[in-house]
Amino acid sequence: MAIQGRAVRTRGALVRAAAAEFDEAGYEGARLSHISELAAVSMGALTFHFPAKAALADAVEEEGLAITKALVERLCEGRAPGLEAVIGLTVGLVGLLEEDLVVRSCVRLARERPGGVGRWVEVWLPAVRDQLGQAYADGRSPRVEEVRQTVADMVVYLLAGAESQVRAGAEGPTSVTRSVAERLERIWRLALAGVLFDES
Amino acid sequence: MAIQGRAVRTRGALVRAAAAEFDEAGYEGARLSHISELAAVSMGALTFHFPAKAALADAVEEEGLAITKALVERLCEGRAPGLEAVIGLTVGLVGLLEEDLVVRSCVRLARERPGGVGRWVEVWLPAVRDQLGQAYADGRSPRVEEVRQTVADMVVYLLAGAESQVRAGAEGPTSVTRSVAERLERIWRLALAGVLFDES
Repeated sequence: MAIQGRAVRTRGALVRAAAAEFDEAGYEGARLSHISELAAVSMGALTFHFPAKAALADAVEEEGLAITKALVERLCEGRAPGLEAVIGLTVGLVGLLEEDLVVRSCVRLARERPGGVGRWVEVWLPAVRDQLGQAYADGRSPRVEEVRQTVADMVVYLLAGAESQVRAGAEGPTSVTRSVAERLERIWRLALAGVLFDES
Repeated sequence: MAIQGRAVRTRGALVRAAAAEFDEAGYEGARLSHISELAAVSMGALTFHFPAKAALADAVEEEGLAITKALVERLCEGRAPGLEAVIGLTVGLVGLLEEDLVVRSCVRLARERPGGVGRWVEVWLPAVRDQLGQAYADGRSPRVEEVRQTVADMVVYLLAGAESQVRAGAEGPTSVTRSVAERLERIWRLALAGVLFDES
């Protein structure tokens, strides 16, 4: 049992170290020797747990997708669907990208490996569509479906933009005195009421 | 003169081939041998014009920034500043990302090399701020400055998101039956009037 516990801890340390390395260097640029150093685990133990770079990347992606899925479920649970739920979900996802290295690394890996970033997006986009299906639910105008599609696009664009801001970090073009999640929420609030911002 | 003309053509072919290679493989992943093949120019001629990979990347970035600057000037010229000008500029920039390989490659290079994507953003962000300074110009509410900052953030986020959609191409998570520029314009129109979309 003690040995099994140690193996689990070693595996966990390797996944966290791999997340850091993939997030920094990308899939192609990542080096197993860096991951072994970072995790303070020998190369022998590394290849025992993960025979190839792809296996490590699979593990990071899998964990990142699971964390994202758990957040989506938690944020949707017991909440009335609609635009407020969509905003809460978007801002929550950006918070995750800012704070969770495994998730951020997962998004980069999903983008750089076959299949594309769609793998990550598909974890939360159905929930967004579902919430949007119930927003404007009373609308009978034929425009409602188009508006829903446009808002879904907006969520996808804003999240991709927020991710790129998180990555740019202090080097980014806009002020970082506020977190990206906070700035995203301000954008949402403004877009809800209308950018035309009639102050009268 | 004829020889000089040929040298200019060779240089141009190399910059275009380098743009394609950097856009596809990134700075680290790009190979000079691919660029030489793609341009149908010998490695000897390549290194005569560009002694190192960094020199090729500099040339691609420089041309991409110049093309972007020219578009910004053209779109601002003779146009009343304000939100419509901001929308026109954003949509125009995304069109450029969709259609111009040198510009798209320039953005990727700026992001991957020291200095960050800010180099590209700084070509158009001052124009956006300028236009926003004149939008809401009559507003005396203390909130106006905050709204301007939030709209500037929105432009940065939406453009970064649109770039990531352009790169994802057919693999992207949302429909590609419309161009990214068209979808961005729809998002703007909706955000202008307000996502709450009161159809009454």
